[in-house]
Amino acid sequence: MINIIAFYQTKFGELWEKSLTYLIKEVIFGVLKEAKLEIDQLNAIFFGNMMAGVLENNLHTSSKISEIIGRNIPIFRVEAACASGGMAFHLATKYLNDNSQKTVLVLGAEKMTDYSPEEVTSALAAASSGEEQEAGLTFPGLYGLMANFYLQKYRYTEEHLAYVSFKNHYHGSLNKKAHFQNKLTIEKILKSPYVAHPLKVLDSSPISDGAAALIITNDKSLLKKSKTSVSVLASEVATDSINLFQRKSLDEILATKIASELAFKKAKIKINQIKVAEVHDCFSIAEILAMEDLGFWEKGEGGKRIKELSTMLGNSDLTVNSSGGLKASGHPVGATGVKQIGEIFLQLTNQAGERQVKNTKYGLTHNIGGSGGTAVVTILGS
Amino acid sequence: MINIIAFYQTKFGELWEKSLTYLIKEVIFGVLKEAKLEIDQLNAIFFGNMMAGVLENNLHTSSKISEIIGRNIPIFRVEAACASGGMAFHLATKYLNDNSQKTVLVLGAEKMTDYSPEEVTSALAAASSGEEQEAGLTFPGLYGLMANFYLQKYRYTEEHLAYVSFKNHYHGSLNKKAHFQNKLTIEKILKSPYVAHPLKVLDSSPISDGAAALIITNDKSLLKKSKTSVSVLASEVATDSINLFQRKSLDEILATKIASELAFKKAKIKINQIKVAEVHDCFSIAEILAMEDLGFWEKGEGGKRIKELSTMLGNSDLTVNSSGGLKASGHPVGATGVKQIGEIFLQLTNQAGERQVKNTKYGLTHNIGGSGGTAVVTILGS
Repeated sequence: MINIIAFYQTKFGELWEKSLTYLIKEVIFGVLKEAKLEIDQLNAIFFGNMMAGVLENNLHTSSKISEIIGRNIPIFRVEAACASGGMAFHLATKYLNDNSQKTVLVLGAEKMTDYSPEEVTSALAAASSGEEQEAGLTFPGLYGLMANFYLQKYRYTEEHLAYVSFKNHYHGSLNKKAHFQNKLTIEKILKSPYVAHPLKVLDSSPISDGAAALIITNDKSLLKKSKTSVSVLASEVATDSINLFQRKSLDEILATKIASELAFKKAKIKINQIKVAEVHDCFSIAEILAMEDLGFWEKGEGGKRIKELSTMLGNSDLTVNSSGGLKASGHPVGATGVKQIGEIFLQLTNQAGERQVKNTKYGLTHNIGGSGGTAVVTILGS
Repeated sequence: MINIIAFYQTKFGELWEKSLTYLIKEVIFGVLKEAKLEIDQLNAIFFGNMMAGVLENNLHTSSKISEIIGRNIPIFRVEAACASGGMAFHLATKYLNDNSQKTVLVLGAEKMTDYSPEEVTSALAAASSGEEQEAGLTFPGLYGLMANFYLQKYRYTEEHLAYVSFKNHYHGSLNKKAHFQNKLTIEKILKSPYVAHPLKVLDSSPISDGAAALIITNDKSLLKKSKTSVSVLASEVATDSINLFQRKSLDEILATKIASELAFKKAKIKINQIKVAEVHDCFSIAEILAMEDLGFWEKGEGGKRIKELSTMLGNSDLTVNSSGGLKASGHPVGATGVKQIGEIFLQLTNQAGERQVKNTKYGLTHNIGGSGGTAVVTILGS
């Protein structure tokens, strides 16, 4: 069995004084301190990063990490757009299953705010297809198409979407590491300018800098010494067409559905046993689709359910995006999947402070790449 | 035990009529046909690619592959500069060790010749550090520093270096898939223009397009049906500082040394049992350093040994870079590590045609990233 024994993240936000290298360094040494480990106790590192190649012409960051830590261990860089962090974690679990008594550091990091909005929008578009880029579709545009389809098919309004950001900003207000810690009103969200109809600025996750890291191990002696640990019950990956026009439906992320089914089968638990989940809310519509495709809600009832705010902290026995989600806690792309798992680790080990969910035994994370071409679903148990 | 059961590669070269997507498609369906498998028999895909993000703003290529094959299986993109292919293979073996009775396709592909030499040189520089890029160092420059140091320290001349290209072009002349199939004379190599002193154009591997794919499996029933198979005895990875100025020595690639030692320990064979090897000769000096650091030759004797041409086909019981190496067979970056393993597969299964090495039981590949920040060493046995 693989266990997570420590988590560390930088604050997410506009960190103009910190370079990508600085962020990587901070979380590596931060999480080692958290776990009371020395560098020599690490057997490998998995690094999730999407854009350093496109934005700052830095690839081969695995070798950069070797330089930072001064060690010659295997280091892997994994890229799957916004799912890079989740994919790095997934491959790290495969690595551990092939090597007994080992310890691996998983980190994700992204530096985005040093560049102009045009440069970042273009770099983010690298997660979509060449055809979509040539057609001038940006990510707000792609999710806007999905949102329009969903609202029309199930007869919801933009107000329904707004409840996602309302809830997640409330959670963000309880998280000192969040990019945004301000609460929003439904009125303010609805009055924010359109990015791509029907999605507005306040339906959209921000451009953020940040990094996050986890220590995972199957070393029994190390596990014995750890005060806090959480078991990895399942980590499953599915893929789908990169092009939206190649998908069977605009209101379903098939990769999420498949990864979720595989994960629950592997973890041998039922979905109603999950009390806390971090789902990929890059845009408000994405959280609604995720909740349906993961199996928490029936297809088409998401609009109604989100408006009931049942997944807001304290309102029911399922809290979603207690970290603030991508919307409020921020979305430094490669770091997001790692931070999601870290948030569940904090929740399951009662370290989530003001945003602690009560009586949690199982938690789930859901990290997607692009408009849904990759999905990673992880189930953790305390 | 993991076995390779099929290999397929496109011709390497200036393939202006073929896009990256086309190349990927060609090798996926080519290797499936070679293995007599259907797409539904694949459980996962590992994809090595370095530059599609930087050159054509295409990341998230794992999802593009899902679209090409019309399936929702896990697909991973791995990047470690010029070692991307070797790293994809390495992680695929980890994946199989975690999953019994499974079959995985490993592919590498790169599309480079659609861009100007300036664009490609800049994109390749992404494999070096930001500091080196700011200093104006390109890859010929980095390897030029190593070559100058080596020649001066051990009192060799540029003529010694030339024998690497002489040998590898001879091998390339026997390989219909090679980028260059022309033989060279030592005189012609020495008269070619300098790229970065003491390295000349004909000391340097070319900018190529191409793709390569392998099918690897631990499914015993599938293995029984396969006419050809080769065992993966070891695949080991080591890393080192990305910056040349941070290394202890300019005439040693420490990552190669460590990965080689680990691989021979794992494979439980001795280096003199290796009869055929593909080593990373991005520049002539790189093959000489590789032969020493892998343990084939003593440190410092490489200049003398290469001039004896003992590693040329038929000259001794060790043949190196029978494919033509990166120099003659071409260097479509992400494809190289996969093609190297494919060449050894062909040699160990007696399918190498005119360039077949006799009496081979064990073979080795050596794939490095950047100036040596990552090294992957694989040992195969028939």
